[in-house]
Amino acid sequence: MSDTIDAVGGVPLDRLAARVGQTPFFAYDRQLLTERIALLRATLPDEIELGYAVKANPMPAVVQHLAGLVDGLDVASAGEMLVALDTPIGADRISFAGPGKTDDELAQAVAAGVLVEIESGGEADRLVATGERLGLRPTAAIRVNPDFSVKGSGMRLGGGPQQFGVDSERVPALMDRLASAEIDLVGFHVFAGSQNLDAGILCEAQRRTVELVLELATHAPEPPRYLNVGGGFGIPYFDGDEPLDLGAIGDNLDDLVTNAIRPQLPDARVVVELGRYIVGECGVYVTRVVDRKESRDKTFLVVDGGLHHQLAASGNFGQVIRRNYPVAVAGPAAAERETVEVVGCLCTPLDLLADGATLPRADVGDLVVLFQAGAYGLTASPTGFLSHPPPVEVLV
Amino acid sequence: MSDTIDAVGGVPLDRLAARVGQTPFFAYDRQLLTERIALLRATLPDEIELGYAVKANPMPAVVQHLAGLVDGLDVASAGEMLVALDTPIGADRISFAGPGKTDDELAQAVAAGVLVEIESGGEADRLVATGERLGLRPTAAIRVNPDFSVKGSGMRLGGGPQQFGVDSERVPALMDRLASAEIDLVGFHVFAGSQNLDAGILCEAQRRTVELVLELATHAPEPPRYLNVGGGFGIPYFDGDEPLDLGAIGDNLDDLVTNAIRPQLPDARVVVELGRYIVGECGVYVTRVVDRKESRDKTFLVVDGGLHHQLAASGNFGQVIRRNYPVAVAGPAAAERETVEVVGCLCTPLDLLADGATLPRADVGDLVVLFQAGAYGLTASPTGFLSHPPPVEVLV
Repeated sequence: MSDTIDAVGGVPLDRLAARVGQTPFFAYDRQLLTERIALLRATLPDEIELGYAVKANPMPAVVQHLAGLVDGLDVASAGEMLVALDTPIGADRISFAGPGKTDDELAQAVAAGVLVEIESGGEADRLVATGERLGLRPTAAIRVNPDFSVKGSGMRLGGGPQQFGVDSERVPALMDRLASAEIDLVGFHVFAGSQNLDAGILCEAQRRTVELVLELATHAPEPPRYLNVGGGFGIPYFDGDEPLDLGAIGDNLDDLVTNAIRPQLPDARVVVELGRYIVGECGVYVTRVVDRKESRDKTFLVVDGGLHHQLAASGNFGQVIRRNYPVAVAGPAAAERETVEVVGCLCTPLDLLADGATLPRADVGDLVVLFQAGAYGLTASPTGFLSHPPPVEVLV
Repeated sequence: MSDTIDAVGGVPLDRLAARVGQTPFFAYDRQLLTERIALLRATLPDEIELGYAVKANPMPAVVQHLAGLVDGLDVASAGEMLVALDTPIGADRISFAGPGKTDDELAQAVAAGVLVEIESGGEADRLVATGERLGLRPTAAIRVNPDFSVKGSGMRLGGGPQQFGVDSERVPALMDRLASAEIDLVGFHVFAGSQNLDAGILCEAQRRTVELVLELATHAPEPPRYLNVGGGFGIPYFDGDEPLDLGAIGDNLDDLVTNAIRPQLPDARVVVELGRYIVGECGVYVTRVVDRKESRDKTFLVVDGGLHHQLAASGNFGQVIRRNYPVAVAGPAAAERETVEVVGCLCTPLDLLADGATLPRADVGDLVVLFQAGAYGLTASPTGFLSHPPPVEVLV
């Protein structure tokens, strides 16, 4: 990743900042989003449907743009569902996952006609009751907590005891119980991890996921029509991270669809659901240097943004070891290079955006940009912290 | 801390939830706030002025209540400053600290007449220029980055190279430079740490702070009138944490004021600035159980709140080791006790509020309460994460 940046979406950064009218802001690149989906389409088998996990970036303009490119949207709250329903995507291509769905949320989902991913037996009962109350037959899939977990995953969501999904060994009994209920049970969702950069591990997870759902399918009253095999594709954040080998994943999915799924379930939709992998590298967070100061043996660039907008970049969102996200100074770059601390404007030492970064010299007024800000940036940050103004988001 | 709770501010919790009209919510206890200030007044010397650091909890009703009890307010942004200015406290009793103050923020502060705590030489120059532009003489203090740091502090804000304050060895030159400028330089602010539970360490920090400011005072063109000696008083969060020995701190401050400060600076205001210590234990976060599920060998209570409202309790806000905040079930308590995982409603495994907590049995619809939620709760949390509704805050 370069330590300078000239433009986003073809617009020079200083001009973009003037157009936005303020710093800090997030800029997402429409063309990069389109290219990312094209890459996935070109690399994954034709039969794979692409779902976008809205939680990665719920900015309405981003969701609208992606809705024209993907086959479905996955939402994790009623708020995200409303954003998804505002797109041209059909409600039957929207899935709603997440533990702790309230009765109100279930009612909204059933009324909308979206597919509800059942996270527990209790939720299944509440969903059926909601449908009876509304006089509507809910569409649902069972989210399965697998009996395996994926090693090397940045975040593990499957295996062992979990708040997510129904333990795989309990799924047959749940299907039996729901067979006589007023509910259209269309299939399964298995999600075994996230932010994984190792294609071998992801392929193994997909293989085991397919084995699991095909075994569960034998217990289903009728052949499943929906198989969401999860995602978990990672993006590089840190020095030494290698991009995911997407080709290997495409080959593996091709083999699984052709040789395992289709013989048993010729008509089922097979969905890969991705969030971070689609949007993460398509956005930047743009700040302006407010102060430049020397303190003892270090040089500090104090910018007008900070962890209240991009918490993960400060290393404080669940990370054990803090490492720098890629950072750059907006061009034209000074010839002089220097090692600096880039800190935010919050009155807390946690607000460290780059520690010992070597960058072209930047002065007060210059723009400092953090990359990999397209996913889990603004919405995953404590925007109210210290009551600073919110940033703006633009899709360029 | 008990594992059951009946009421907040004398209002039974189920009635309070009905009054609020929703869960989750934060409830802050007016009487506890009053008692906390009374404890500080009774224990610290009469000559110590109490400042409230608004960033700990900027809810306007809380700030209004505290404004009637403390001697001053410290703000860390223009947003906090507006909340403080809406109270009856005089602008000259409001201080504005924090790196990265923008020109606009400086102009707001100068126009308001609040005391600006200067964080760098560059900021000092911008402050003077702002005053000239507005035709107003800014009031300012120099925030000093000490040449020592306090061991055992939860968060270190002084010593070594820092974005906070002017290195102590650079302060005399800065005062010389500002002596001829149109600015009223009233004194110093030294803040050496936060969330410290060891009175011995805090006393040592106060002693060194007073030594430092008295030494710096000898370089000042006129005797300083304002000495903000910081705070850093911690509150217990975890099993085994012992409450701070406030009496020892009071004795130490009494000695410092009487024997060190007054002989040299008979008229200076001496301010102790506290945030978390004042409000942290006066608030709870109230959630409702949405789902109760068994997964393999564990029992999960899925509540309608989560890390999007109370990030620190999930252990994901800069903490290296996750430990449970105190948690309780709202009474009347069931006789049966059990060990549970309390998880939030977010679709992420990070959303863990209590790990292996032993509590009275709770079922769907019951209220689960997290203590120590008065400081750095709502505003320090990613409220937009997964687009769930915001919580409500009430002062009871």
